[in-house]
Amino acid sequence: METNPPEGLDDPAYRAAVVDLLGVLAYGELTACLRMATDADLAPSLRIKAQMAGFASTEYRQYELLVERLDDLGIDAEVAMQPFVAPFSAFHDRTRPRSWVEGLVKAYVGDGIAKDFYREMASFVDQRTRDVMDHALDDAGTGEFIVGVVRDTLKTDPTAKGRLSLWGRRLLGEALSQGQSVAVERDALTALLVGGGADLTEIGEMFTRLTDRHTERMARLGLTA
Amino acid sequence: METNPPEGLDDPAYRAAVVDLLGVLAYGELTACLRMATDADLAPSLRIKAQMAGFASTEYRQYELLVERLDDLGIDAEVAMQPFVAPFSAFHDRTRPRSWVEGLVKAYVGDGIAKDFYREMASFVDQRTRDVMDHALDDAGTGEFIVGVVRDTLKTDPTAKGRLSLWGRRLLGEALSQGQSVAVERDALTALLVGGGADLTEIGEMFTRLTDRHTERMARLGLTA
Repeated sequence: METNPPEGLDDPAYRAAVVDLLGVLAYGELTACLRMATDADLAPSLRIKAQMAGFASTEYRQYELLVERLDDLGIDAEVAMQPFVAPFSAFHDRTRPRSWVEGLVKAYVGDGIAKDFYREMASFVDQRTRDVMDHALDDAGTGEFIVGVVRDTLKTDPTAKGRLSLWGRRLLGEALSQGQSVAVERDALTALLVGGGADLTEIGEMFTRLTDRHTERMARLGLTA
Repeated sequence: METNPPEGLDDPAYRAAVVDLLGVLAYGELTACLRMATDADLAPSLRIKAQMAGFASTEYRQYELLVERLDDLGIDAEVAMQPFVAPFSAFHDRTRPRSWVEGLVKAYVGDGIAKDFYREMASFVDQRTRDVMDHALDDAGTGEFIVGVVRDTLKTDPTAKGRLSLWGRRLLGEALSQGQSVAVERDALTALLVGGGADLTEIGEMFTRLTDRHTERMARLGLTA
């Protein structure tokens, strides 16, 4: 449709940051899709299995949208995603769910933290990129479904609350730790945040907001953060 | 769109057979989707991983189409799929791939046999059901992709041919064995085949065609049946 790049994309630093942002978001959707499908395989009922497969499929479509946007920018999606393969693998290796419910909590908590971060970043990008990001950030009912499943589990399994609360804290710790190592590696992404007018105090405030929202999410699940 | 059921669906035996056929096809697509995504997780490169996730997503859309058709018939898809959960689980438990390439061969060979069988059955059903089945039977390029990957593997790994050929024979054996137990359990489905004019000789011929096509598929992969 559009033949001219949107305002600002001529600036190589800005462009690199947008590519990083779309790349990490795309790779995040792709792994979220594959993780959800893998966990669905362990789900106890046909209904839940089918629903989780549906969420995986939605995540794949969001991945496709991000790849399309990268294509529009003349960027190879694989190249844009590659820098994020290692940190995502590290996160997943350190947080292997031992049950399908742990998998769902991980999807909810992990995606939640990641998406809150992308929402923070979205305020620093051009309208067109923001639109694509907004679309990819729509959870399509996944969250509501997970909250229902986890709350049902808490009702029937008295040991679940302590175990899953601990799991949530571990997920937050690992996510922030991997996020930090990405920030150190990806200068353009950090520069977007800082260059967008955020000083160290504001970055600190952003982290406070991320953990506050994590606490709210855990409460929605019926868990303690 | 359509308000009257297509010709023949008033007949309870025919209707039961169509429900079984759509149910087994839908559950087959759902498990194919989840298996493909699970195997994708083990794929060695980002390109292959993304492609496999795309195939999984296509299988999910085909599953959705079949569920829609069942909805149109006033049938709960979960109920229609339930009888096939156990035989599919048995098949998958007995054929756990030890690598992502084995997973791809399984997808190609297993889906191939299943889809050949559905194509045979499609000639006994009404046009509307056949259209939905045809759509679900389109492999959307998955086969071509798998053939390429397996042939590449054979080039670089001298032990792969013997191992994967053996694997293909095991898959055929398990598929036919599970198919037979489904046929014994699901009277309506068998009656459709026999009542559709097929006598024992013709059913025997059908099995010969299924194994012949399996042999052709194995040859396309560069393997021996």
